Amino acid sequence: MKDSESGIIHVPFEVMVRVFRQVLERNGFSREKAEICASIFARNSLEGTNSHGVNRFPRFVRYIRAGYVKPQAEPELVHASGAVEQWNGCLGPGPLNAVFATRRSTELASLNGIGLVGLANTNHWMRGGTYGWQAAKAGFIFMGWTNTTPNMPAWGGKNPKLGNNPLVVAIPFENEAVVLDMAMSQYSFGSMENKKLSGRKLPTPGGYDPKGNLTDDPGLILESWRPLPSGYWKGASLSLVLDMLAAILSGGLATREIGTKEEEYGVSQVFIAISPSHLTNFSSLDKILRDIIDDLKTSEPVPGAGAIRYPGERTQVARRENLKNGIEVNRLIWEEILTF
Amino acid sequence: MKDSESGIIHVPFEVMVRVFRQVLERNGFSREKAEICASIFARNSLEGTNSHGVNRFPRFVRYIRAGYVKPQAEPELVHASGAVEQWNGCLGPGPLNAVFATRRSTELASLNGIGLVGLANTNHWMRGGTYGWQAAKAGFIFMGWTNTTPNMPAWGGKNPKLGNNPLVVAIPFENEAVVLDMAMSQYSFGSMENKKLSGRKLPTPGGYDPKGNLTDDPGLILESWRPLPSGYWKGASLSLVLDMLAAILSGGLATREIGTKEEEYGVSQVFIAISPSHLTNFSSLDKILRDIIDDLKTSEPVPGAGAIRYPGERTQVARRENLKNGIEVNRLIWEEILTF
Repeated sequence: MKDSESGIIHVPFEVMVRVFRQVLERNGFSREKAEICASIFARNSLEGTNSHGVNRFPRFVRYIRAGYVKPQAEPELVHASGAVEQWNGCLGPGPLNAVFATRRSTELASLNGIGLVGLANTNHWMRGGTYGWQAAKAGFIFMGWTNTTPNMPAWGGKNPKLGNNPLVVAIPFENEAVVLDMAMSQYSFGSMENKKLSGRKLPTPGGYDPKGNLTDDPGLILESWRPLPSGYWKGASLSLVLDMLAAILSGGLATREIGTKEEEYGVSQVFIAISPSHLTNFSSLDKILRDIIDDLKTSEPVPGAGAIRYPGERTQVARRENLKNGIEVNRLIWEEILTF
Repeated sequence: MKDSESGIIHVPFEVMVRVFRQVLERNGFSREKAEICASIFARNSLEGTNSHGVNRFPRFVRYIRAGYVKPQAEPELVHASGAVEQWNGCLGPGPLNAVFATRRSTELASLNGIGLVGLANTNHWMRGGTYGWQAAKAGFIFMGWTNTTPNMPAWGGKNPKLGNNPLVVAIPFENEAVVLDMAMSQYSFGSMENKKLSGRKLPTPGGYDPKGNLTDDPGLILESWRPLPSGYWKGASLSLVLDMLAAILSGGLATREIGTKEEEYGVSQVFIAISPSHLTNFSSLDKILRDIIDDLKTSEPVPGAGAIRYPGERTQVARRENLKNGIEVNRLIWEEILTF
């Protein structure tokens, strides 16, 4: 671990996993569960998403201590019918429940070609892409989403009614994966908080100021709690139907119900896996994607816009860089974690 | 049928179905297929989407005459494995193939809880919402999408590389349905053409002018052929993964390959149905949705923004109004159709 004068330190991945594991073991986790959960948080940071990795870890521990997250809870099967299952997450740790539900959806897909798991009564899964990577690395196509507490207005409304309900789509590709992980707000609260901390504006308008005007100032948006849905009415509509499906398919709470709680817990999630080995063109998947990606990269570039990337490509770059150099961490956050 | 001096006439739904049917019968369709296809085109107009109803019908007939659309072709099963099937559309009429694939996905869902049909080598399905309504009215949850010819740039690129790849999500609701039908561009080319004709601007920036600046002028966007993806990089990313999945799951062409043809034909589509009767909370679906929608409508309204609606609500309003008053049609388009 190498300190610097800027308040940023570099933490090796293995150190981060070990520290998280020790904290979780001190907070009611079994050794095995602590290891899995610590690895997920550390990997989220390793792969470039500190907002749902190290930066979020203190809040996760506070939620455990407050009783919102039950470290020892296990998912329970509520209903199984064909390739569809509904599980109760029993308020267990979101990442552990989501890893379980992802694996279960791939098992159902192995048997049936496609499988769906609805997971009720679970907790924040942190980075949704985690489960896309998990499924894709196991060889499966994956679509999944979660609902959240209301944090976005309806289209035509002012106050929070919709969740930003991140959607994940993942496809295995050349021993890595194409992984789309997108919240329904134009910017995540995590990225707006990061931008605010570093005194930067958003690259495009990302929500409304307290007076109701569109703004690129993340601080004003965090004040109004009124982020812009991605694609205006389109993101608002997609958020709404994803919440409806999450509540129906899991048998759990809808965003409006999560919003009646004092904190965000007891969310609903959906995990759909598809087995490529059930397709006739199974052996050509890599080539189909490679040809699409190669063609995309022959685009005539917009000057100054940066490289054209496919979803998940940046994750691979971050992973390589952070494995080599250690993960950039805010020193104060790290020191707080060491005290837990 | 009541003429008016404005160039707009009102055509009753039944008249539109009959005229379309007669035209299709004169252009190689069997009576039965002409009836189904005519009903879909007329219903698209009835439900407020003239751009994929009466206004598109002349181009559909031209594609038949040019041989891109084969009126008598039937879909052929390529591969079946569990709840997943891959079909060859054999370049048959897009709406007929899509109706077939939607029904097949619901049959697979009836057996397995969830079912997936990939459809290769088919044609434009017109209004995607049609198949969402079909599945939902039959009692099924539905997700489906199509790829298209390249008509949108990659994020960071200038020239068309992505399709606008409409996505449909539908859920049965109180004998009607919630139906989201969204293209990945912020505005459809049809709506930009309409706005340009009437000399209006878009309500938000919808693409780039030929100099590369964001603009709300539909004429300049149609000139640059560079519409804005919905939610910037988010719509571009979602478009990309939907195309990848369409090509993989159907075994058909990707957007880049469709772009090598002289016209848009031979597209790839995905149809996923979920059977609510396989869920433990089957009987509460209407109530879950009603509570979510009622809550949404208690939003504090943005002054002047109009009513807060759920996706599919406007469709029901248009259907009722147009059944009563007849469908508004451009007289010149109608007169052209009568000559076919």
